[in-house]
Amino acid sequence: MIVFPYSLVEPVITDNLSSALLPLLARYAPSQTVLLTPLSEYELLSDILPDTTSIFILPDGENYKRLDTVQLIWDFLLDHHITRDGLVINMGGGVTTDMGGFAAATYMRGVDFINIPTTLLAMVDASVGDKTGIDYRGLKNTIGVFAKPIETIIYPPFLATLPAEEWLSGFAEMLKHALLSSEPDWQALLAYDLDGRSLSDLSPLLARSLAVKQHFTNIDPMERGMRRALNFGHTIGHAIETMALRSADRRTETDTAPTMPSRHGFCVLWGMVAELYLSVAHLGFPREPLRQLSHLMLEYYGRPQCDCNTTDQLIQCMYHDKKNFVSTSHSRQPAVCINFTLLRRIGEPVINCEVPVEDIRESLDYLFSL
Amino acid sequence: MIVFPYSLVEPVITDNLSSALLPLLARYAPSQTVLLTPLSEYELLSDILPDTTSIFILPDGENYKRLDTVQLIWDFLLDHHITRDGLVINMGGGVTTDMGGFAAATYMRGVDFINIPTTLLAMVDASVGDKTGIDYRGLKNTIGVFAKPIETIIYPPFLATLPAEEWLSGFAEMLKHALLSSEPDWQALLAYDLDGRSLSDLSPLLARSLAVKQHFTNIDPMERGMRRALNFGHTIGHAIETMALRSADRRTETDTAPTMPSRHGFCVLWGMVAELYLSVAHLGFPREPLRQLSHLMLEYYGRPQCDCNTTDQLIQCMYHDKKNFVSTSHSRQPAVCINFTLLRRIGEPVINCEVPVEDIRESLDYLFSL
Repeated sequence: MIVFPYSLVEPVITDNLSSALLPLLARYAPSQTVLLTPLSEYELLSDILPDTTSIFILPDGENYKRLDTVQLIWDFLLDHHITRDGLVINMGGGVTTDMGGFAAATYMRGVDFINIPTTLLAMVDASVGDKTGIDYRGLKNTIGVFAKPIETIIYPPFLATLPAEEWLSGFAEMLKHALLSSEPDWQALLAYDLDGRSLSDLSPLLARSLAVKQHFTNIDPMERGMRRALNFGHTIGHAIETMALRSADRRTETDTAPTMPSRHGFCVLWGMVAELYLSVAHLGFPREPLRQLSHLMLEYYGRPQCDCNTTDQLIQCMYHDKKNFVSTSHSRQPAVCINFTLLRRIGEPVINCEVPVEDIRESLDYLFSL
Repeated sequence: MIVFPYSLVEPVITDNLSSALLPLLARYAPSQTVLLTPLSEYELLSDILPDTTSIFILPDGENYKRLDTVQLIWDFLLDHHITRDGLVINMGGGVTTDMGGFAAATYMRGVDFINIPTTLLAMVDASVGDKTGIDYRGLKNTIGVFAKPIETIIYPPFLATLPAEEWLSGFAEMLKHALLSSEPDWQALLAYDLDGRSLSDLSPLLARSLAVKQHFTNIDPMERGMRRALNFGHTIGHAIETMALRSADRRTETDTAPTMPSRHGFCVLWGMVAELYLSVAHLGFPREPLRQLSHLMLEYYGRPQCDCNTTDQLIQCMYHDKKNFVSTSHSRQPAVCINFTLLRRIGEPVINCEVPVEDIRESLDYLFSL
């Protein structure tokens, strides 16, 4: 396994995209520049990038975060004779930065890439932390590598036109960071007006949230220990998201029934509600933040489109979660235990908590009954 | 791009496989162990590995070093519930260590792996140096990552039953290392009896060869500079190999015409002959080692199954070689220059030599006319 020194690349938060990007292009002087971006956003950099930039329009949406899309990117890079001294710019949401980063990191054993996240979720989560990846066989981020962008540029004005649901999705990860950090961070987020969504009020919260993410990434870049704290909410959240992905996969184009929402942050928020419930039960976490989070969920996020009938399938998904590990500590038979990050208090995560299946069921019952 | 500290993992050279492997298994205590190996070799470890080891028999041969085989490996790891704390053991030739390493390094963003090379070529080349990869669209090692095995175990007794052609293939890379190293190393290899192939005579040469490879890997793990010295012979060698691969792809099962030999080391040896010719022309390299290498080629390796009619196709392949880069230094029009590592003297490689196409033609004419 690669263990690389964590020379932290601080994301640049800027109100001027060209003043952040142009010096980078000058410093790295790539032989060729490639922009990977969904159609909706490809004109945003047109005045900044060199005329010779090759632009690959990515299909948008989690459904396309797949190996065959990565092959399209590899093909594009080959067809445009991109060499190892080229540069890939991933501009978009988390699908773009995760998948574009993976394609760049594996093309000719790695070409440099820059992330320019355009959604709140990608700004606070996907584009920082050096994880790249794609979904495989319907399992989230099963294939990927750790790879460091040469820079992540965070340009908050992108958020001015972001749909409310996308805001909420990113805000869920910010809530997670606050729960991992401190009571004041938590209170500051609860006080933020999610209807008004002021950018100026958001800015200091964004900087704090990035600092928390970087703290855990910094102390354990390869996620062998304390970085697992960042998985809080994700064991159950990923399972909900995986089921939503599968359900989307099964749909035909003529199918008009409503789909399960699968926005990552929504799933994480639901996962956090269930996992805070487990934290209360297992570690004596105080009930008040669970109440506050449940309240916020009902007000803004709604309920997951799951119910007690899907509980078994959700638990099956958790067995395949890459954060889980085999343990024989609870029985004489080797068994895969489901591994959680739980909280003792706000700011006090406990990694590698093994939770019996019956307790997971109970936490899902709590979530579904809200 | 990832830049990881080069904490050199010295390959272990041992005459006792279990004494090398068992302490590693005890130290890393993997949750599950997976053995990836071609059919011909899977019983070699059966007395050593835990009974619970999952064994995946890899299809053998460079033709299978492809993305779809990697998918079969990923599927196997998923189906066997291998988690991040698992361990993959790649035992086989360079195809196995390159492809198994890539599959392990990308599965769940990386599980630990051990390389146990069984061919001379894999011992001195593929399994050391932290490169993993697969061929893509017929282009050698186009997709891959740098990833470090937790150990590489070199067990020379494997070589006792290795076919002569496989010996020669590995010996070509040893010749390359000697040319990059020193006159005594070169003379020692020329004095080695390639008909007798004594293991005891080989051992000190093997250790020297690994030391040279490690020297260049150590000073430049990500191949941004002097590691490119190791590409000596590979610009033209890879082109010959790529054409051989394509020719194999076009063959049908009922096609009984002889195939072009595509053993990596043979192609590298032919590439070295042509590139030593370029070294004489461009850098005043002495003619005697070129004569010696040409003589060795005719005695043991034979001629490549290419001729002047394939020269244009070979040059096309070189344009796609991932070590090449765009340069405008030779003309006002941007153009891809073909980039070589050449030698000024034995032990004095010069990287990033840009060679005009007409000179490459001349070197191929020399090679084909031998």
